Amino acid sequence: MSEPQVVTLGQVPAAQITDGVTMRAIFGADAMLSLVELAPGAVVPLHSHPHEQLGYVMSGEIVMSIDGHDHRLGPGAAYAIPGGTEHAGTAGDEGCAVLDIFQPVREDYRALAENSA
Amino acid sequence: MSEPQVVTLGQVPAAQITDGVTMRAIFGADAMLSLVELAPGAVVPLHSHPHEQLGYVMSGEIVMSIDGHDHRLGPGAAYAIPGGTEHAGTAGDEGCAVLDIFQPVREDYRALAENSA
Repeated sequence: MSEPQVVTLGQVPAAQITDGVTMRAIFGADAMLSLVELAPGAVVPLHSHPHEQLGYVMSGEIVMSIDGHDHRLGPGAAYAIPGGTEHAGTAGDEGCAVLDIFQPVREDYRALAENSA
Repeated sequence: MSEPQVVTLGQVPAAQITDGVTMRAIFGADAMLSLVELAPGAVVPLHSHPHEQLGYVMSGEIVMSIDGHDHRLGPGAAYAIPGGTEHAGTAGDEGCAVLDIFQPVREDYRALAENSA
């Protein structure tokens, strides 16, 4: 049983996911919400995970490649990536910020966040 | 097995949750992401559901009551509400927009969205 949590996400210590990509997250029992910021041109290489991923573009632009299809996404775009589906992301020239939700919790990200706190 | 989806959330038909409160959602297999807009002063009455809820305040202000504690939240605030925890929300004078994530999918909201499409 997790407890209710209220945080200012921008004040959560940033954890580095890869070059030019950081994450600030809140972890529930079986889902997590993360504010992911990508520097201009930053790349999240092609990968997959068993976790379902939902996302929302907050600002900037990102080209998301999902299952071999490229999508140029700006603020207000949302996506759903089934578990096990290959995907990648490349930030535009001004970088971007997205909210990414994973279900269940990515324990690798939880460990990363704990090591960055 | 769900399919990858990409949408502009603001263009998804709005479903009315309660007076002055609408939702535009994208549904994954076991989680959903919804853009919830509350008119000035709109109230989501005290309730609970077995689904875990994570949220992020996009704009405006909302007073969230979670398990008997009130939190005045503005843009950038995030919250995690365990399943079964009573909560309510009251929008500020300018209304507000929040992203709410539910896990698993709220089938009542899926039906509501399908009826609004």
